[in-house]
Amino acid sequence: MTPEGMHDLVRRLYPLCRSITGDGVRATLDVIAEQVALDRHEVPTGTPVLDWTVPREWNIRAAWIRDPSGRKVVDFADLNLHVVGYSVPVHRRMPLAELRAHLHTLPDQPDLVPYRTSYYTETWGFCLAQRVLDGLPEGEYEVLIDSTLADGHLTYAEHVVPGRTEEEVLISCHVCHPSLANDNLAGIAVAVAFAQRLENPRFTYRFVFAPGTIGAITWLARNDPGRIRHGLTLACAGDPGVLHYKRSRRGDTAIDRAFALLTDAEVLDFTPYGYDERQYCSPGFNLPVGSLTRTPYAGYPEYHTSGDDPDFVSAEAMSGTLAALTRVMSALEADRRYVNLSPFGEPQLGRRGLYGSLGGRSDAERAQMAMLWVLNLADGDHDLLAIAERSGLPFETVADAAGRLEAAGLLKGDR
Amino acid sequence: MTPEGMHDLVRRLYPLCRSITGDGVRATLDVIAEQVALDRHEVPTGTPVLDWTVPREWNIRAAWIRDPSGRKVVDFADLNLHVVGYSVPVHRRMPLAELRAHLHTLPDQPDLVPYRTSYYTETWGFCLAQRVLDGLPEGEYEVLIDSTLADGHLTYAEHVVPGRTEEEVLISCHVCHPSLANDNLAGIAVAVAFAQRLENPRFTYRFVFAPGTIGAITWLARNDPGRIRHGLTLACAGDPGVLHYKRSRRGDTAIDRAFALLTDAEVLDFTPYGYDERQYCSPGFNLPVGSLTRTPYAGYPEYHTSGDDPDFVSAEAMSGTLAALTRVMSALEADRRYVNLSPFGEPQLGRRGLYGSLGGRSDAERAQMAMLWVLNLADGDHDLLAIAERSGLPFETVADAAGRLEAAGLLKGDR
Amino acid sequence: MTPEGMHDLVRRLYPLCRSITGDGVRATLDVIAEQVALDRHEVPTGTPVLDWTVPREWNIRAAWIRDPSGRKVVDFADLNLHVVGYSVPVHRRMPLAELRAHLHTLPDQPDLVPYRTSYYTETWGFCLAQRVLDGLPEGEYEVLIDSTLADGHLTYAEHVVPGRTEEEVLISCHVCHPSLANDNLAGIAVAVAFAQRLENPRFTYRFVFAPGTIGAITWLARNDPGRIRHGLTLACAGDPGVLHYKRSRRGDTAIDRAFALLTDAEVLDFTPYGYDERQYCSPGFNLPVGSLTRTPYAGYPEYHTSGDDPDFVSAEAMSGTLAALTRVMSALEADRRYVNLSPFGEPQLGRRGLYGSLGGRSDAERAQMAMLWVLNLADGDHDLLAIAERSGLPFETVADAAGRLEAAGLLKGDR
Repeated sequence: MTPEGMHDLVRRLYPLCRSITGDGVRATLDVIAEQVALDRHEVPTGTPVLDWTVPREWNIRAAWIRDPSGRKVVDFADLNLHVVGYSVPVHRRMPLAELRAHLHTLPDQPDLVPYRTSYYTETWGFCLAQRVLDGLPEGEYEVLIDSTLADGHLTYAEHVVPGRTEEEVLISCHVCHPSLANDNLAGIAVAVAFAQRLENPRFTYRFVFAPGTIGAITWLARNDPGRIRHGLTLACAGDPGVLHYKRSRRGDTAIDRAFALLTDAEVLDFTPYGYDERQYCSPGFNLPVGSLTRTPYAGYPEYHTSGDDPDFVSAEAMSGTLAALTRVMSALEADRRYVNLSPFGEPQLGRRGLYGSLGGRSDAERAQMAMLWVLNLADGDHDLLAIAERSGLPFETVADAAGRLEAAGLLKGDR
Repeated sequence: MTPEGMHDLVRRLYPLCRSITGDGVRATLDVIAEQVALDRHEVPTGTPVLDWTVPREWNIRAAWIRDPSGRKVVDFADLNLHVVGYSVPVHRRMPLAELRAHLHTLPDQPDLVPYRTSYYTETWGFCLAQRVLDGLPEGEYEVLIDSTLADGHLTYAEHVVPGRTEEEVLISCHVCHPSLANDNLAGIAVAVAFAQRLENPRFTYRFVFAPGTIGAITWLARNDPGRIRHGLTLACAGDPGVLHYKRSRRGDTAIDRAFALLTDAEVLDFTPYGYDERQYCSPGFNLPVGSLTRTPYAGYPEYHTSGDDPDFVSAEAMSGTLAALTRVMSALEADRRYVNLSPFGEPQLGRRGLYGSLGGRSDAERAQMAMLWVLNLADGDHDLLAIAERSGLPFETVADAAGRLEAAGLLKGDR
Repeated sequence: MTPEGMHDLVRRLYPLCRSITGDGVRATLDVIAEQVALDRHEVPTGTPVLDWTVPREWNIRAAWIRDPSGRKVVDFADLNLHVVGYSVPVHRRMPLAELRAHLHTLPDQPDLVPYRTSYYTETWGFCLAQRVLDGLPEGEYEVLIDSTLADGHLTYAEHVVPGRTEEEVLISCHVCHPSLANDNLAGIAVAVAFAQRLENPRFTYRFVFAPGTIGAITWLARNDPGRIRHGLTLACAGDPGVLHYKRSRRGDTAIDRAFALLTDAEVLDFTPYGYDERQYCSPGFNLPVGSLTRTPYAGYPEYHTSGDDPDFVSAEAMSGTLAALTRVMSALEADRRYVNLSPFGEPQLGRRGLYGSLGGRSDAERAQMAMLWVLNLADGDHDLLAIAERSGLPFETVADAAGRLEAAGLLKGDR
């Protein structure tokens, strides 16, 4: 998928009315499935999942407010953010004064429509721009929300790229937000593009497309996360801000170290807030799962407003996110702990053609140093990331040296 | 006790001639006993205590020097610092030249009288201002020290506030210095005021009023310090300097971390010098006992001179010391290690009323974050201090969140 | 040996044509043996040593190049750097164009002759100044190298100063470089001078004079390094640069800490490059062996050129290196872990004469503090270096205090 292809995917997914359940999620997965094969899961309402229960399914067909003159002043058909997520059905007339209790605006950003939900309290409401609200005349309004909140299913999907080992990389994207581009259609697009790049990887890659919180909890309840060796949540992947990586709860896992060493992402300490790393890093699981974003969670003015539209994200930004992700995952694919099989003194490299063979390379000296570093630190404790950190040499140079030494029978790597 | 009450206590104790033994200590304890109940201990001369032996008891009734004209130029009745502590009795006439060997002054602080003792070498002497010495005419002087140094007892006292557990907090004040206000009447006053504030505490609080070094050694020899969970020596609590906390030998105990996190005291590394933390932190005991002072040991010009009088200390300074002590001890009372009983994913707080119940609070967001931090780090390893350190949230907010979560059945705390 | 004696030794060894084998090494050892007793070892060609094999022995008698007029334009008799080490014999005529492939110069340092070797590839060559090469006319040249490369021996020697224990200090000097003064005749001279200073040491000191790489590997193959408690390679000990100490692979051994604490050497992290610390610190051995130099390996323009002659090194610089080595080794001789035999409270020092005895010393207060620090940290974990680090007191003051306390029966040291 090209950079523009990612942007196109964002644009295509944008109008769908996603929520934590319902047909908007299914339609979203249909579009993703055109790009990568998906295993879809439908979990019935009422299913216990960890400390939670799968909620009722919500679907919506129409919603509007007509002013006293009968004109539609707010219409879900224009922008699905106009309805509070999980609004129960309503069709009533009421004066503006009474309606106001159901209207949500952003007084400090008067042209933007906020994004609001009420998953676990039954209510209804509309979101609109403060400026629109300010222009509404007094009088009798007609409101309609044609929704259903009924037993059904929670929907999520997985895309799995089988690896040479059963150890897994988890990439988790929330798919529950309606028309918000950066949060999280951009994350979905980068995940899809990354999945398409994978070829016969070492690890099994599991992409989870699930609603936030309840979706991750459902996935965790139904799966054994013990195979996850590296993971991250991928969100807000297309805004103009600089890249940020938030460490896992453990703080020193390989993926934490790799982002710090190999990318120019700003690295943040773990906090139990943000995206579904909250669930993956709960103390009972404590998985090696960080979070990759551009601007972090809730850190930009357009966050959770109609300002987060497809123009807010760019192909360039998504490409940058994809490049960092690719670089880190490539390194983790190559990362190993080696044991030097000739650990007493230096082995004679010249005899094995590991000197002369370097003669023609412009980076011969660096390659030579990398061999010495790898031999010296190949004690089963240091992985290649640690050797790159300590030597100051590029990871790829270190990994290349390890490969040459292993081919010469001087090292044995794990797996 | 009010701030002025603390200052009044300092003034009342000031004239008493304390030493490491003797009636001055007993009179001091009599005054303290008017404020808090004391268990008093009299340990006979010759009792082996750890590597030491309880010394003979010293008492003094009068001491003076008369000049050739018969005028008293130095008089113990004016200031008890005038006599070297533990001076043996003497009544002689001698020329000034011979007397000089027994006179101690501070040439650099010519108006101040130094404080000197000679506990373990039998001698006698007087302390006086250099300016007074300079004014003495040559001639025959008469000196009298009406003291006794004889088998008796070493006296110390404890005030114990029983707690809900047998784990103890030790607060240790030295009571062996004669007319020195900051060192350590101010420490005694703050300890008494703090004791009076305690109500049904979790820990059992043990206040030890004992002479320095030999008193602490005697206490350690006669007690099992295994119950001490937190402790400090309290000294120099009323001077105008900023607050200092010296870490225990271990350097990372809860009380060490609490002073650093919760007060604006300057935190110093442990040294095996200063007050009785030297004994409590000897390697065989290695107790979690730090030291709280304003200006640290020997750090002010008035130290161990007649300049350390009741005007050198203030009610405000003692109040500040008391406030820091109270804040730290309150936190240690609340500090616990919790285990999250629902550690797989986040528990559903809304269902338990832990979201909505916060709606009306101005610090709702912070309280919410504190719950997430506590749930995330309630793994039995992190205490609340550590959660406050890592989250950057106020300790009280964290402790409050833990209390709410425990009440909801989501956490189990130690004790 | 005086500072000038060290410089004289450098001058005397300078003309000898050393290599990794051969009579130049033996002649070098003959000169060293005039100063310190040597155990010499001759290891036959073909002997397997760790991953390597002892190579053939190389000897050379003469080598020159005559220009078309018959004039010697390059002559080994002038400077042994003129011949590539391990050059095979040759006696041929050839045009300059053909000869050029066998000539090595330093275009950026046109007046200097480089040092080149070809131990493991059979070839021959000459080294000369670029300016000389530039002056050579075209025409037919005659070249002669009268060398032999044949089965023989690898030669190395040890000087051992027996200690009171079997634990060893290893000081290793490479002796394979021909006329290069700093690298490593200065290191040899400092090692010899240091050896001569040792009197009844605690440790057994083993000085190894061996060719680089293959010599250290041979030594390691034939000895059990398990007794080495401290060690270093000593090289480049006489140049005008500041002292540098490179940490062992472990990075926190006693010798690593001692150089940091006790000398003004710049301390560098370990790298698997440089001198024979590469072998001693290979992961299978991982010995506590650092490296002491003035300017580090390859860090000066004269490195491996004819500029590294006896005038490049000075008696003053070698003295400075010797002083730092002596200071560190003296401290390591004194370094111990002690256990306080009276660890409960402070022992009564006055009763043991450990107060009064200090009265006359100008550093009485510091000596007193040192006793308190030693008593406090004598827990079997802290060695004296650690006590000096933590207390900020001079190592000698700490060691002296420990000695006095041990004499008083208050401490028990290891060994």
